[in-house]
Amino acid sequence: MTTVFEERTRAAQERLRDHDADLVLFPSHDLTYLSGFEEHPGERHLLLFVPRSGDPVFFVPDLYGEQIRETSWVPDVRTWADDDDPREELAAVLADLDLGDRLLVDDTMHARFTQDLAAVHDCEMGLASEVLGPLRVRKDEAELDALRRAGEAADEAVEAVRALGDEAVGMTEDELAAVVERELAAAGGKGVSFETITGSGPNGAMPHHTHGDREVEAGDPVVLDFGTVVDRYPSDQTRTVVFDGEPPEQFEEVHVVVREAQQAAVDAVAPGVTCEAVDAAAREVIEAAGYGEQFVHRTGHGVGLDVHEEPYIVAGNDRELEPGMVFSIEPGVYLPGEFGVRIEDLVVVTDDGCERLNHTDRGWRCRPSGRFD
Amino acid sequence: MTTVFEERTRAAQERLRDHDADLVLFPSHDLTYLSGFEEHPGERHLLLFVPRSGDPVFFVPDLYGEQIRETSWVPDVRTWADDDDPREELAAVLADLDLGDRLLVDDTMHARFTQDLAAVHDCEMGLASEVLGPLRVRKDEAELDALRRAGEAADEAVEAVRALGDEAVGMTEDELAAVVERELAAAGGKGVSFETITGSGPNGAMPHHTHGDREVEAGDPVVLDFGTVVDRYPSDQTRTVVFDGEPPEQFEEVHVVVREAQQAAVDAVAPGVTCEAVDAAAREVIEAAGYGEQFVHRTGHGVGLDVHEEPYIVAGNDRELEPGMVFSIEPGVYLPGEFGVRIEDLVVVTDDGCERLNHTDRGWRCRPSGRFD
Repeated sequence: MTTVFEERTRAAQERLRDHDADLVLFPSHDLTYLSGFEEHPGERHLLLFVPRSGDPVFFVPDLYGEQIRETSWVPDVRTWADDDDPREELAAVLADLDLGDRLLVDDTMHARFTQDLAAVHDCEMGLASEVLGPLRVRKDEAELDALRRAGEAADEAVEAVRALGDEAVGMTEDELAAVVERELAAAGGKGVSFETITGSGPNGAMPHHTHGDREVEAGDPVVLDFGTVVDRYPSDQTRTVVFDGEPPEQFEEVHVVVREAQQAAVDAVAPGVTCEAVDAAAREVIEAAGYGEQFVHRTGHGVGLDVHEEPYIVAGNDRELEPGMVFSIEPGVYLPGEFGVRIEDLVVVTDDGCERLNHTDRGWRCRPSGRFD
Repeated sequence: MTTVFEERTRAAQERLRDHDADLVLFPSHDLTYLSGFEEHPGERHLLLFVPRSGDPVFFVPDLYGEQIRETSWVPDVRTWADDDDPREELAAVLADLDLGDRLLVDDTMHARFTQDLAAVHDCEMGLASEVLGPLRVRKDEAELDALRRAGEAADEAVEAVRALGDEAVGMTEDELAAVVERELAAAGGKGVSFETITGSGPNGAMPHHTHGDREVEAGDPVVLDFGTVVDRYPSDQTRTVVFDGEPPEQFEEVHVVVREAQQAAVDAVAPGVTCEAVDAAAREVIEAAGYGEQFVHRTGHGVGLDVHEEPYIVAGNDRELEPGMVFSIEPGVYLPGEFGVRIEDLVVVTDDGCERLNHTDRGWRCRPSGRFD
C-alpha cells in the first residue's frame, strides 16, 4: 500500500525535476511530511536525500537505524557509527547518489550541516520550501481534522481560564500560564505549540512577552495567546480579557477596534483574494481609528506542521488564497507601558470564504455565564 | 555599568580579531550568552552582528524592538517592519557594518538565513563555536551562581522525594515524576531541564527510559535523574534509591561500586587533567569490580546554557580541564531486566580540584532522618 508519505514524496520529485534540483532534509517538519519519521534536530548528522528520481535515502546515526526502518516507508537507510567520521561517510553517500549541482536544503538546516554538505559536494544551494512549500500549504482532510481538534482543545482551555474570573487576580503570569497548560493537557492536547503568553497590564504591550512573575491586578487587560498540539498539528488563538475590576479608560475602545479589525479580515477571506488584501482589511479598521502606528505586526501566519509557515498575511504578499490554506488572523494594538489587545482565530479557506477553527467568545469580560453584555 | 554580557562580547571580539573574522548570531544560546536576550529561532530575520571591533548591532523585527532594548545591553538595535523586504534591509545593514570576508555564523543558524547572508555579502563562512566555544566552556561568576542555585533546587526536590519513603510504593513512575516536577517548582525552579527520569526496577536498567505507568514496588531500586532551570541555567543530578523494603541481592554491592566510581572521578578532577582521565577514573573502579561491560555510557557532559555541551567526559577526549568548567560525573551500572544504578553530581573545576554543586546523601536508603546507617 502506498502511504500518504510516499505519495507526497513522489509529488515532490515531480517538482524537483521541473526545478532541476535534488533535495536534502534534516530533522524537521519537511522531513516528517515526506518520510513519516519525527525527530528534533541534534548534533549528529541525520539527513534524508530525495533525488529527483528513484527512491530516497536516509543517512542516519546507528542508534536511529532500527527506529527509522520501523516508522518510515523509505526503503534505503544507511547508518554511520559514533566512531566513524560523519563527513567521510557523507561524502561516500553523495558520491554514490550522483546528485546534480543544485541542492535544495531544509530551510531550517543548521549551518554545521550545510557547511559539511558544501565541503563535500560542490553545488549551488537553494531552499526546500521552493518545492515543498506549494505542497504543504494546502491541507488535506487528515490535516484539517487534526487542526480542528487542536482548535477545540485550545477553546476548552480558554473557557476554563476565563472561568477563573476574580480568582486570577493576584496570580502571577507564571501561575496563570501553568493553569493554561494544565487545561490544554486536560483537553487532550500534547504540550504547547509555542511558549504560552499570559501578558498582563503593560506586559501585554510587548507582543512577544511570554510570562513572568508580575501579578495580575484587578483591571488589568491580559493577553492570553496559546496553543497545544493534537496528532502533530498545532492550535494558536488569542483572547484579551479582564479577569475582574475596571480596565483602563482607553481599553474598551481599543478592544472594540481590534475585534472589528479581526472580523473585517475574516470577512475578506476567499479563494483568489490576496494575502495582503486580508492584512489590509484588518489594518484599515485600525488605521481609521487612529491606532495604525500601534499595530506593529502582520495580520497572520499560516499554520500546519509548523505553527508559523506560509501563507503570511502581510502587506506586500500578493499570493492568492486557495482552498485548504490555514492561517491565523490576529490583529493587535499595543500601547507601550499601558496594555495590549490582540484577538486571534485560525481560519481555513473554503470554496467560498472561510471557516473559523476557534469558537469562543471574543469579548473581554470574564463574568459568569449569563452576565455577558 | 558594564554588564557581564558586554564583558563576554568584548572577550569574543578579541578572539575574532585573532581569527580575522566577524560573527553573526541568530536566536540561540550563543546569542543569549552575548546579549542577554533569549528567544527561540523563528522564521523572521533576527540577527546579532558582532564585528571584531566596535559595538554589536541587532537586526530585528519591529515587534522585538522594545523588548530587546529593555533586556539587552546592545545599544544599536535596528528594526525592520513586516512590510519591508528583510533581504534589502539586511543588505543595508551589512553595507553599513563593513564586515570582513570571513563570517562565523551560529552553528545552528537556519539555511534560510545563511543563504540570505551569502546572497548579500560575498564571504567565506565558518562556525561561531570556533570563537565562542572556548569562552562558554569556562563559566563566569554569574553563571556559577545560577548553576549553584539550580543545583540547590534539585537538591531540595531530591530530599522531598526521598521523604516519601514507603508512600512512593504503589505510585506509578508517571506519578512519581509529577511529584518531582512539583517539588522542583516549589524549590524555585522553572520547568525541567530535560525529561524527568523515574526508572523503577528493570526500567532503571534502560539509561534513556524516562517514566511510564509501571508501579514502584517495595524493594525496587529507582533511578531519580532530573533537573530544573534557574535564571536560564540547568541542574542535572541523579540518585538511585529504594523507597521501602529489601532491594535485590546484588544491588547493595553495585550501589557501593558506582558510588566509589563517582567519588574516584570527582577526586580525579583538577585543572590540567584530561577529560578522558576523569572518565577512566570512574571506569577503572567499575571494571575492577567486574561491571565494566555494564557501564554503557560516557562518564559525563558539560552543563551550561545547554544541558549537554562541552566538555564531554569520555574516552578519547584529551582536552584538559580548566577552572570554571562545569560538568556532570555520572557513572552507572545497568543489569538488563533487573535494575540500574546511576549516581550523578555536577562539579565545577576550581584552582586545585573541584566543587560539587549537589550535596544530598548519595546513599540509597529513604528512612526517616536519624535512621540512616
